[in-house]
Amino acid sequence: MLKPKKVVLAYSGGLDTSIILKWLQTEYGCEVVTFTADLGQGEELEPARQKAILLGIKPENIHIVDVREEFVRDFVFPMFRANALYEGLYLLGTSIARPLISQHLVRIAHETGADAVAHGATGKGNDQVRFELSAAALDPAIRVIAPWRLWDLTSRTKLLEFAEANQIPIAKDKRGEAPFSVDANLLHTSSEGRVLEDPAVEAPDYVYQRITPVEQAPETPEMVEITFEKGDAVAINGERLSPATILTRLNEIGGKHGVGLLDMVENRFVGMKSRGVYETPGGTILMEAHRGIEQITLDSGAGHLKDSIMPRYAELIYNGFWFSPEREALQALIDKTQEHVTGTVRVKLYKGSARTVARWSEHSLYSEKHVTFEEDAGAYDQKDAEGFIRLNALRLKLIATRNARVARKV
Amino acid sequence: MLKPKKVVLAYSGGLDTSIILKWLQTEYGCEVVTFTADLGQGEELEPARQKAILLGIKPENIHIVDVREEFVRDFVFPMFRANALYEGLYLLGTSIARPLISQHLVRIAHETGADAVAHGATGKGNDQVRFELSAAALDPAIRVIAPWRLWDLTSRTKLLEFAEANQIPIAKDKRGEAPFSVDANLLHTSSEGRVLEDPAVEAPDYVYQRITPVEQAPETPEMVEITFEKGDAVAINGERLSPATILTRLNEIGGKHGVGLLDMVENRFVGMKSRGVYETPGGTILMEAHRGIEQITLDSGAGHLKDSIMPRYAELIYNGFWFSPEREALQALIDKTQEHVTGTVRVKLYKGSARTVARWSEHSLYSEKHVTFEEDAGAYDQKDAEGFIRLNALRLKLIATRNARVARKV
Amino acid sequence: MLKPKKVVLAYSGGLDTSIILKWLQTEYGCEVVTFTADLGQGEELEPARQKAILLGIKPENIHIVDVREEFVRDFVFPMFRANALYEGLYLLGTSIARPLISQHLVRIAHETGADAVAHGATGKGNDQVRFELSAAALDPAIRVIAPWRLWDLTSRTKLLEFAEANQIPIAKDKRGEAPFSVDANLLHTSSEGRVLEDPAVEAPDYVYQRITPVEQAPETPEMVEITFEKGDAVAINGERLSPATILTRLNEIGGKHGVGLLDMVENRFVGMKSRGVYETPGGTILMEAHRGIEQITLDSGAGHLKDSIMPRYAELIYNGFWFSPEREALQALIDKTQEHVTGTVRVKLYKGSARTVARWSEHSLYSEKHVTFEEDAGAYDQKDAEGFIRLNALRLKLIATRNARVARKV
Amino acid sequence: MLKPKKVVLAYSGGLDTSIILKWLQTEYGCEVVTFTADLGQGEELEPARQKAILLGIKPENIHIVDVREEFVRDFVFPMFRANALYEGLYLLGTSIARPLISQHLVRIAHETGADAVAHGATGKGNDQVRFELSAAALDPAIRVIAPWRLWDLTSRTKLLEFAEANQIPIAKDKRGEAPFSVDANLLHTSSEGRVLEDPAVEAPDYVYQRITPVEQAPETPEMVEITFEKGDAVAINGERLSPATILTRLNEIGGKHGVGLLDMVENRFVGMKSRGVYETPGGTILMEAHRGIEQITLDSGAGHLKDSIMPRYAELIYNGFWFSPEREALQALIDKTQEHVTGTVRVKLYKGSARTVARWSEHSLYSEKHVTFEEDAGAYDQKDAEGFIRLNALRLKLIATRNARVARKV
Repeated sequence: MLKPKKVVLAYSGGLDTSIILKWLQTEYGCEVVTFTADLGQGEELEPARQKAILLGIKPENIHIVDVREEFVRDFVFPMFRANALYEGLYLLGTSIARPLISQHLVRIAHETGADAVAHGATGKGNDQVRFELSAAALDPAIRVIAPWRLWDLTSRTKLLEFAEANQIPIAKDKRGEAPFSVDANLLHTSSEGRVLEDPAVEAPDYVYQRITPVEQAPETPEMVEITFEKGDAVAINGERLSPATILTRLNEIGGKHGVGLLDMVENRFVGMKSRGVYETPGGTILMEAHRGIEQITLDSGAGHLKDSIMPRYAELIYNGFWFSPEREALQALIDKTQEHVTGTVRVKLYKGSARTVARWSEHSLYSEKHVTFEEDAGAYDQKDAEGFIRLNALRLKLIATRNARVARKV
Repeated sequence: MLKPKKVVLAYSGGLDTSIILKWLQTEYGCEVVTFTADLGQGEELEPARQKAILLGIKPENIHIVDVREEFVRDFVFPMFRANALYEGLYLLGTSIARPLISQHLVRIAHETGADAVAHGATGKGNDQVRFELSAAALDPAIRVIAPWRLWDLTSRTKLLEFAEANQIPIAKDKRGEAPFSVDANLLHTSSEGRVLEDPAVEAPDYVYQRITPVEQAPETPEMVEITFEKGDAVAINGERLSPATILTRLNEIGGKHGVGLLDMVENRFVGMKSRGVYETPGGTILMEAHRGIEQITLDSGAGHLKDSIMPRYAELIYNGFWFSPEREALQALIDKTQEHVTGTVRVKLYKGSARTVARWSEHSLYSEKHVTFEEDAGAYDQKDAEGFIRLNALRLKLIATRNARVARKV
Repeated sequence: MLKPKKVVLAYSGGLDTSIILKWLQTEYGCEVVTFTADLGQGEELEPARQKAILLGIKPENIHIVDVREEFVRDFVFPMFRANALYEGLYLLGTSIARPLISQHLVRIAHETGADAVAHGATGKGNDQVRFELSAAALDPAIRVIAPWRLWDLTSRTKLLEFAEANQIPIAKDKRGEAPFSVDANLLHTSSEGRVLEDPAVEAPDYVYQRITPVEQAPETPEMVEITFEKGDAVAINGERLSPATILTRLNEIGGKHGVGLLDMVENRFVGMKSRGVYETPGGTILMEAHRGIEQITLDSGAGHLKDSIMPRYAELIYNGFWFSPEREALQALIDKTQEHVTGTVRVKLYKGSARTVARWSEHSLYSEKHVTFEEDAGAYDQKDAEGFIRLNALRLKLIATRNARVARKV
Repeated sequence: MLKPKKVVLAYSGGLDTSIILKWLQTEYGCEVVTFTADLGQGEELEPARQKAILLGIKPENIHIVDVREEFVRDFVFPMFRANALYEGLYLLGTSIARPLISQHLVRIAHETGADAVAHGATGKGNDQVRFELSAAALDPAIRVIAPWRLWDLTSRTKLLEFAEANQIPIAKDKRGEAPFSVDANLLHTSSEGRVLEDPAVEAPDYVYQRITPVEQAPETPEMVEITFEKGDAVAINGERLSPATILTRLNEIGGKHGVGLLDMVENRFVGMKSRGVYETPGGTILMEAHRGIEQITLDSGAGHLKDSIMPRYAELIYNGFWFSPEREALQALIDKTQEHVTGTVRVKLYKGSARTVARWSEHSLYSEKHVTFEEDAGAYDQKDAEGFIRLNALRLKLIATRNARVARKV
């Protein structure tokens, strides 16, 4: 296969992607363009620029972009309209960021005339799949380079040797193995690997990075009111805010109260199980509140339909099929249901839990007139229930009659 | 319609079902047989016997049965194998008890030669549907009498007048309206109506009956280990226990730590929304732990299949179709997946949350060898991922190529 | 309940709806407005006008509307985008016409200030449900009158007596019972009841009205080419035609060749099974051709998704939920998938069968380059399949290993 | 990778698998064991034995097995219980045979101490996946060799050269390319490739091998009565027959009448579309009849549930996941629904169509008493329909009221 001439690399500025950067240069003799995204991971990005320059990247080839609003508006919010949970629990914090990164890699490749993009995901995980399926859907001709599947730097020692041989600076605390691997963005922090590899062993406290340990969370509950319009959060406590600001605020409040911790074993698309620890403070509150506002504004027909397709929708995102016709078709369904998902929810935060305690909306379908224990002034005729039940029961009676008839003959 | 001659009544011993009892006697001049079940609702049942005798029921017509083991073993546990949540949140505590009660009503009707059964559910709720669909499925010829849909006792005043006119004892605290309505059994306590009718108003503290307010829960976390066999809990902290005992213990532990509170607005089968407050301490822990053990013992194929049919399964139970061919067919699917769901989960309880922190099993599918960040000794060839991704990407590339081709022509 | 003052009646001009017309006048003393739709049922509608006048309806209260284009464009075509089949076989010809009729009844009620609408469907069938759910969704305040559920004209004799007593003309051939009941529109003719009631007895030949008996169909096959744009048929044999014209033409061609006959027992929403004979010549060809064009233009991801929700979509239409949030959400999904369902299909008609034999499209996803048995010039690397299979096999291997390990221990 | 020592090859006796046989011997120097199955493909198998001996296989290493009964009983019939159709049309005739072949390959490998199995499927198709996933599920340690993905015999010329160089006899008619590729077994004959590669070009007549051209089919219709027990066919025209005999007979009758032809473009699991021509005479009749018997014996609840999971079930079989937990769980669901699918169906065959015209069963749920247009003696109270409709309409009314309220405010 021909060597690529110009490669856009998803570059964090860390040791691993710096090694990849250098490896691309040495392996292919190609020009490297770096893309570093501010996804709200909570790190300064300017050091990434300095490091890229140090590694010989031309200033005009360094692309550092704040994608936080785009991330929340175009990826996180559409996903939350679906109440998406992978395997019943996981809020898909890493999965949902990958297509956005690929989208920028491909965009920059087109703008700079690059013939390939590269990422730092390993050959065992889901992220390689997500990066590469997204790239394929956005540009079927683009080449994707995954150095972890190609090189022979298969041990820590070899990686460090390569780094030293290539004048890549190594931070002191990177000399040893990290005790676990971390991915972070505005939606979540995930930790996996090494000390977390045995699912029978509890995760040590030092794994948790974003969420206050419940024991140290405030002794006083805090209420937060979230306002939605057409399924998306638009205000907190009455203050209208941008998508990324909303998620940032919810992260702060949720993190303070110890909300959003998850320790699970999940099924990777590539066929193995893995154990992850996820911290999703704002997302957990957002999901709770979104369910809360749907409870009064969404009809059971649309609601149950959404619930029934949600696992498939979540699986598609987890597996990397964000840019696929089936995800887009499901999104059309979900978005259609959100037209009246408008109103406000009060969530109570305390010691790790986020619980809806009140919700109200001008779009409410809740009819106190119908449900009341008091006289309902004719809103509902209880006798209707008899016919309703009798016709629902008819087939069950026919079955029972048949079964008895057959049993008698046997 | 002919008057029934002998009616089996689901009788709690409370004021409402006592009024029904008397109303059946006076309206139809029929013999009444009472059925009072110990479902773990936490009330003495002997007073129900005394009251029935007082109201003129013959001793041999009074049936008081401890159904707790049966309830958990044959109804609660099969349902928990499915991780059933109605509308994403509700653990179906009331729904799952109704078919059992109907089953006993029909059984006693057959044993005593009764030609009808009667229940005290109103015409607005789900319970009437559940009682009557179950009865229809078990005996298509049996008549079900629902006095709340028939009589003219449509106000509290009229009910109390009827009670007084018929020498039905009225406890002092029953003179006034209860501020909300309660249903309880071993799985949960539910509260609804009156002070809870406005979903924009927080539930007052006195609604909570079973669960310690989180603020007063112990300051120290507690671990509980639950062992499963084929999807059902069989032991707590290593001690093998009966189904009902397991749920009772989990209720105690969970209740102490404030676990299992839910305030939601749900969609009733009869077409309206209603707000309920649910306390399900043991069930919440059980669900968490069951998911935990499935995480390591259940394959993704079976797991995702289960997840995709769960909403429908939960809806069937909520709507009263426990005794239906479709619930039974779904149960066959679910039970088939549970053959290896065997192992132990450690759950951490603290201040309202129940969180899986460790799980282990001889039936585990988790392969540390495959997932490890360390050298895996050939268990997994990272290069396989390339072919995997390329073939998964193929159709996405064909779509992108087609779309570009069409776009150029337009 | 108060008597209605002005009622819009779905009026065919036949004996039954004429009796209903008169019954409404005499029972309620109300003004009656008639709505007669040309749905392509193949009957002259002017006689309905004359008969209405004869029965005392004011000319301005007679509404005769040609709804054929609307019917096909807004109801039939959207449904065919989904390949909707109820219970695997039924093309929903009656079901899909009912919401349109209700829509016009409600519209005319609004325009004429009527306070009720009325229909001639019986209390045993699905049509009452379809009419009334549609009306409820379009105007929650409108009253629907279903005389067949209200009156005491429960036998043929009583109906004829009522007709005679009220000077309703009775055609000679209507004196006796019809041997079966018929519903017809541009999409299909359905027959049910009486001679068809025993599903073990073959339908007599005289039941078939629209389709040439296969034995008498031409001995020579005929090809028809149907062109689609975004999922809807737009041309036949290269001639661009309106929706209703397309269906009319396909009915002619299909009918001639004996295509589109179905004899089935189906499950009614009201709980019983019924046997119907359906003749859907044009619809059967349209479905075949639509599947044919989807085969080359629709991706497997979107296609399998559509297939998986189709049964639910068909059930919703059958049950009368056309105007429901869940049907509309599913429609959004389906329509999203049709954006590239554009191209032409050749269908071969002969002696009762309609079979796709060729299809082509500028939007085709079919890649001869990839699929060819010849050398493919590098389009596809067969070695990719190895990694693809190995990762798909991984979880199966882990299961087999686990099962063997557990079996050894037992 | 080490060379295998003993390989069990799926051997047809044809040129291609003979070349593979020899290639295995020369490439690995290994012992080859052949497995030739009589799946009802309609070929003599003794020539395969002679040819294997000629190629140097020891007689004790030649395994020729008649698997027809096993094939129909354990694979075809369970699948037909589900009414499985891939992409709405394909009866899965090739897909369902592959796991059976793998099962025997693995069994023979265990019995003969072989360390690998081999098949002759190419790297572009589905069969390689089906063979290898089945093998992995049955023995996670077994090695599967797919020579078409490994060797350099990438053209017809090279293959023939290899054959000649290795004294493999080449039938005269195998010198040139076959105009298309064929797979056959008792369920179907499939043809694909070369002259069929352009889906816009009609398949030439000579492609059809098993089914009489419709034009030449008898002018007189023929009736066939198929009796089912628990979902499986057990008798034809009253004669009790073994599974394989039933399918054989239906093939004869159906083939004679031109039944069971399908020309479609389908989506392969490996990501491309391909065009196939399928001839499935007996299977087409069997599917029609099975649907017919389900119509009267299966409840709508179970029936609609089956329909909703069918596409997934069919996809699993198509993709090669017969031996997977999810297929087995779905099978448990399906089998549960078949307990009363017992009775007889009369199917009319004529000129390419197979149409159910009558069905009867002691297990019938059809109630003439309920459905009749005549007086029903109180079986059904039409007034029940009013309550049924009103409660089904309630949510639609609440939505309409809400929407109007919101619209007024905007």
